[in-house]
Amino acid sequence: MTRPLIALAALSLAIPAFAAPAPLTLTLEQQAEAALDKDENAYAFVEGLTTEVGPRQAGTEAEARAREWAAAWLRNAGFDNVAIEPFMMDTWVPGDVARARVTSPFAQDLAVLPLGNSAATPAGGIEAEVVFFRTVDDLRAAPAGSLKGKIAYISHQMRPAQDGSHYGFAGPARWVGAGIAASKGAVATVIKSVGTDHHRNPHTGGTSFPEGVTPIPAGALSLPDAENLERMFARAGGRPVTLRLEMNPRQIGQTESGNVVGEIVGRNPALPPLLLACHIDSWWNAPGAFDDGAGCGIIIAAAGYAGQHQPLRTIRVLLAGAEETGLWGSKAYSDAHIGERIAVGLESDFGADRIWRFDSNFRETNPALHKKIAAAVARFGVSSGSDAATGGADLNIVRDQKGALVDLQQDGTRYFDLHHTPDDTLDKIDIVQLRQNVAVWTQVVGILANEETAILTGGPIPAAPAIMQGQ
Amino acid sequence: MTRPLIALAALSLAIPAFAAPAPLTLTLEQQAEAALDKDENAYAFVEGLTTEVGPRQAGTEAEARAREWAAAWLRNAGFDNVAIEPFMMDTWVPGDVARARVTSPFAQDLAVLPLGNSAATPAGGIEAEVVFFRTVDDLRAAPAGSLKGKIAYISHQMRPAQDGSHYGFAGPARWVGAGIAASKGAVATVIKSVGTDHHRNPHTGGTSFPEGVTPIPAGALSLPDAENLERMFARAGGRPVTLRLEMNPRQIGQTESGNVVGEIVGRNPALPPLLLACHIDSWWNAPGAFDDGAGCGIIIAAAGYAGQHQPLRTIRVLLAGAEETGLWGSKAYSDAHIGERIAVGLESDFGADRIWRFDSNFRETNPALHKKIAAAVARFGVSSGSDAATGGADLNIVRDQKGALVDLQQDGTRYFDLHHTPDDTLDKIDIVQLRQNVAVWTQVVGILANEETAILTGGPIPAAPAIMQGQ
Repeated sequence: MTRPLIALAALSLAIPAFAAPAPLTLTLEQQAEAALDKDENAYAFVEGLTTEVGPRQAGTEAEARAREWAAAWLRNAGFDNVAIEPFMMDTWVPGDVARARVTSPFAQDLAVLPLGNSAATPAGGIEAEVVFFRTVDDLRAAPAGSLKGKIAYISHQMRPAQDGSHYGFAGPARWVGAGIAASKGAVATVIKSVGTDHHRNPHTGGTSFPEGVTPIPAGALSLPDAENLERMFARAGGRPVTLRLEMNPRQIGQTESGNVVGEIVGRNPALPPLLLACHIDSWWNAPGAFDDGAGCGIIIAAAGYAGQHQPLRTIRVLLAGAEETGLWGSKAYSDAHIGERIAVGLESDFGADRIWRFDSNFRETNPALHKKIAAAVARFGVSSGSDAATGGADLNIVRDQKGALVDLQQDGTRYFDLHHTPDDTLDKIDIVQLRQNVAVWTQVVGILANEETAILTGGPIPAAPAIMQGQ
Repeated sequence: MTRPLIALAALSLAIPAFAAPAPLTLTLEQQAEAALDKDENAYAFVEGLTTEVGPRQAGTEAEARAREWAAAWLRNAGFDNVAIEPFMMDTWVPGDVARARVTSPFAQDLAVLPLGNSAATPAGGIEAEVVFFRTVDDLRAAPAGSLKGKIAYISHQMRPAQDGSHYGFAGPARWVGAGIAASKGAVATVIKSVGTDHHRNPHTGGTSFPEGVTPIPAGALSLPDAENLERMFARAGGRPVTLRLEMNPRQIGQTESGNVVGEIVGRNPALPPLLLACHIDSWWNAPGAFDDGAGCGIIIAAAGYAGQHQPLRTIRVLLAGAEETGLWGSKAYSDAHIGERIAVGLESDFGADRIWRFDSNFRETNPALHKKIAAAVARFGVSSGSDAATGGADLNIVRDQKGALVDLQQDGTRYFDLHHTPDDTLDKIDIVQLRQNVAVWTQVVGILANEETAILTGGPIPAAPAIMQGQ
């Protein structure tokens, strides 16, 4: 079986080196190095998506436009079996009012945005005394009923880290803070944004309320505003600090979302395929260049390069819908395809900065393959890790199948400067680091797609990573 | 005549080294070096003002609170003759709606804020085709009437520069763009923010409309949004780009503003005093840490240190009101005090980063004094410049009197990242650089305040600097 050359051209940019039907003279290693030198496809994808669509909240018409846009891109890039697989989801929308103002003792507006699943305030807002909690643990320790009629403010100390590990440390302020506060009688919650920058753009993201707890308004203050509020407490000298909060988000019931899929069909379609994942949705406030336009650009570009010589196994890409608001696309994909065995899953969803570590969950059970990949990516500055890969948020199907996973860990030092904020824009993409991602992915996907024997394994399947707890 | 020691304590922070009534053992040079090592007064001023007041738009109740706050600070710091000098001004307020959305060919919201003096759109907004001008000169070249019914978008290329000189280059897009567009029939204008950062916070600032030209709605897009709009034009392939703009700013007629003054009375009050200026107002969207809370903190701290030994001449501080919206305080001060000769004027209004150059307008006419100051500040990394000092925006009285001026040029490399944006917050202050400012000011003010002979001069009085054209 032969297959036509993949014309992996950007929609708007011609990339002659890869797009022209030239002889297949490049080896996989040369393809990866060419990507390192001059890939334009990943950047062009992010540029196109952020310019022509922009923010694309799950379940909205903007996300639907993003699906159509991405499907057209995949077809244009020569992918086979491109399809949109719709599913229904519970949809929350942010509304168009988000205001916070300290009313006493120091009157001043604060920059606020609602968290996903936040309830609305009454029109005109809600005004109440603020109770300051330095940590979620302090909030947990507050007596039952002690927040009746109050607004809880929850702080944390998040630091930038290459592996993003402080998200697990600081994230609970957002993930569970509002629910805990509501259960103790609070009328609303505001948190210090779970982020590491100092710009006046709050970081949104999902929160959740336990069964039986009625949702309350839950907002995030930008970090400068949160610090200002904390200084006000320090200067209040025991006087109550009162806040007026007004927001009008709402649940709008079930709407349609969808996953976008495409394939580079392998020489032996009977073998389980690779699944390369990213997500196509973003929060309404974020153009989603880092989260996760870049990830989709990376996997699509790498699939194309690795597939220039038709690979043994099919390479499937999954641009999942509705990741941010609850992994709806990941669940829907697993539900629909659980019977189709996946050989190995990989996801790119941690920005666009360089990959620094490779992990798999078959290091002990298939050491030859693990070592082969580790040796091949070392020249791109990627070390071999000893963690067991857990897979990204959109790889539920692989975890459900207890299958093989590879994690290509990206530098997350500045990821939480941008995460879920309006600042997640195209200009933040460093094309040199983006190309390194495409090169490493090309190399790894090329090896895995030509692996003749089963990739797994038999090792333990770890729980989903901390980053999935709050998306 | 003796005078009591100045208890230059922060309102909330005790600074024992300077606040306690210890023996006057420090020389001026030692005072300056102590400020370099450990001044807390300038930072405490900025922290207090941004925390307890925050944004303080000219002519509003917030600016009035800032005046009261600053007057209390001066009294607490031991200044004499502290007073608020009210004046009336024409007041523009920004309203509470500022929305922009590209409606075709790529639907997407853009971050926008109104420029000072902008008119309102009709409720519900105005939708029109956008005409793209790369520069103000391109806009000037557009034929009369050619923008009828259109929205003009005006771009520029501003670069960071130590001396901030690109403000003069890029500023006209804001200062005069809307007026030119209106005169050619445009129904509204949006500009690329006059700034150098890439955050989703538009830079506001004043614009003006020529006599006889009816004001139109005039907004500023954040730089990432402006770049996105430009990419849309590149991708539109000739299709019209249409924008819906909604803003509700308005002129509210005359309201009260005021200047805050205070003195350290010299041994010979008959001699003309020094005038140290800053401005107390900020744009409504900006907490004004850099612009100009820091400047006020610097001059107040330095006046206190230089005045520890009662100086020969009175040191007067002027915290001007309503600088941003048209130098109302500067004009009012000159009108009220033009008959009181000022010995020399200095202003701090370019952020909080290090001073790198000293200029005067008496380098040629009073070379001994110029050289004495230059020699004294060299140890703080300050070079002696050959430009003729022009004075800051609030020194109208000195220019009107054709008096002596000193400019202590600050590093403006990151000033236009923050200028007139919500990001102008306390966390942007680098206390090490702030202290260098206080040290240099202490040194210079100490020398000038003890100068027995007339400081000027007879040299040419230059025009006001470019930065004053648009505040």
